[in-house]
Amino acid sequence: MSELRLNLITREWVIIATERAKRPDDFRQKKDHKFLPEHLNTCPFCTGNETKTPSEIMTIASDGSWKIRVTPNKFAALNIDGERTRINEGLKHLVTGVGRHEVIIESSLHNTTPALMPNEDVAEIINVYKKRFIDIYNDPRIEHVIIFKNHGEKAGTSLEHPHSQIVGTPVMPMQVRERIDEARRYFDNTGECLMCSTVRAELAEGRRIILDTEHFVTFIPYAALSPFHIWIFPKRHTSTLAAMQDDETADLAYNLKTVLAKLYHGLDNPDYNYVIRSESPKECGSEYFHWYLSIVPKVVQTAGFELGSGMYINSALPEESAEFLRKVKV
Amino acid sequence: MSELRLNLITREWVIIATERAKRPDDFRQKKDHKFLPEHLNTCPFCTGNETKTPSEIMTIASDGSWKIRVTPNKFAALNIDGERTRINEGLKHLVTGVGRHEVIIESSLHNTTPALMPNEDVAEIINVYKKRFIDIYNDPRIEHVIIFKNHGEKAGTSLEHPHSQIVGTPVMPMQVRERIDEARRYFDNTGECLMCSTVRAELAEGRRIILDTEHFVTFIPYAALSPFHIWIFPKRHTSTLAAMQDDETADLAYNLKTVLAKLYHGLDNPDYNYVIRSESPKECGSEYFHWYLSIVPKVVQTAGFELGSGMYINSALPEESAEFLRKVKV
Repeated sequence: MSELRLNLITREWVIIATERAKRPDDFRQKKDHKFLPEHLNTCPFCTGNETKTPSEIMTIASDGSWKIRVTPNKFAALNIDGERTRINEGLKHLVTGVGRHEVIIESSLHNTTPALMPNEDVAEIINVYKKRFIDIYNDPRIEHVIIFKNHGEKAGTSLEHPHSQIVGTPVMPMQVRERIDEARRYFDNTGECLMCSTVRAELAEGRRIILDTEHFVTFIPYAALSPFHIWIFPKRHTSTLAAMQDDETADLAYNLKTVLAKLYHGLDNPDYNYVIRSESPKECGSEYFHWYLSIVPKVVQTAGFELGSGMYINSALPEESAEFLRKVKV
Repeated sequence: MSELRLNLITREWVIIATERAKRPDDFRQKKDHKFLPEHLNTCPFCTGNETKTPSEIMTIASDGSWKIRVTPNKFAALNIDGERTRINEGLKHLVTGVGRHEVIIESSLHNTTPALMPNEDVAEIINVYKKRFIDIYNDPRIEHVIIFKNHGEKAGTSLEHPHSQIVGTPVMPMQVRERIDEARRYFDNTGECLMCSTVRAELAEGRRIILDTEHFVTFIPYAALSPFHIWIFPKRHTSTLAAMQDDETADLAYNLKTVLAKLYHGLDNPDYNYVIRSESPKECGSEYFHWYLSIVPKVVQTAGFELGSGMYINSALPEESAEFLRKVKV
């Protein structure tokens, strides 16, 4: 019989199709591989085309040229200039669309991806995330900052050149607020952080762990929302990415690069999104929230059931998916 | 400048990209049209292949053969047999995967779709929804029932034959509970139903209305989550689909068929999901919740931003989309 598992962090039920579950190999992508060049003249993120993007906010240099480049998103969803103004008229609640929307070009090479980079390069990207994260929160109009990466068309990007994005919104997203509220409720009931408790329980059971290093644990959650849904949690309780220290950054880079490489080789370069979920540094020190990184490979299509209920049907057993990824050599 | 609009019913902020918004025509699908036959020997939902699906739960007959057929889903996510049992062990919360998962085959014709059917046929489908909805809630193991349709591959179906699905879950989805809680909070504050207030405000402003009939109003919400996101609300306050009367069913059929036909002709048969959001008939009479039908055309791809924040970026102006659909002749 299938079973429903409650994800205590997202607070949603997941139907785990235990009986007719697919094998991990069934999620391997059948892609038409195309040869990507190291440099593409028409790519706005390739070297030599820097004028096709707005002027850079920061760069990481290497041997006289840039290695990582951060620019405002040319097609920004939010305007950097302007005042945050609120208008309430009857049922219409409006806030002006001010905020930050930046692109982090992760490499000067068109045809690489974090799964194929050295750990040190991934650590540099994470350091850039942290710097931009802190800087954007310094803007008093910003209530929340989201860091994310879209890899591949099914993940919502048509740009092949490796990049991630960071958005600062002038409002607090309700989904984020609800998850913080749930974590606070758990803290009220138990005196413990929900994520710290989750790390301890996952490590004790061990069956869903992919990587266990000094500072981080990478695992498939008990109630994974979709096949190969992966979480990377810091072991030290910290509510915000801003508090990450250098040795932790290096360790996170190892975890992120390694698990992305396991997906790349084990499932043949699936499209994926990842996001960093963190509290604001202004809340730094909250005892009940704990930042983490969530990876969602786009190997299945959601439909009306998920739309209408918020619940998910996961046709992969989290325990089997984790075992499969543990065995992938990278 | 773009603007953020708060959707009071989903409780989520939407970034409406007013400045660089796309024109309604930009969402027209560029499809390779393929000729679909009226009957396909290999289709499990076509006549003559009834043994390829489980035995029917109900049928609507016409001229000696079936016109609508309801069967258990052959690949059901939940088992019809078994006890609802709950196991709580530490952080693991589990409920056995019992429930209902049925398929409503909407026509014996392989190549039709509600957008092309006579209103009366759509009314018969809606009547079947209502009957199965009430019957499934009679199962004491069922906490919530979701009715939905997936039309096209981007909406999560590979079966061309027109069909919808109904799922009864042994748990209450958190997303549904949160929306009911929000509606109750509005009721506590105002003494009014949030959806009744929304209908009144939308009709008063008029700019986002697509259809306004005796019993229903079809509109694009002020804070539509995505391009051409459409709501059909009953004007009479009723918390549950189970309370719909025959003249209302006929009027809903007209609204649903007409707006689907407008999408079909105006955007060239886009893939879409629709869902019916309703309280349980056991809660019949609740003053604060109001059932409705939500249509989400799959004309854009969500990505890491939506995943990480729950917020949406809508690149179509709701007012322009509604005007466009009002003008599509069907």
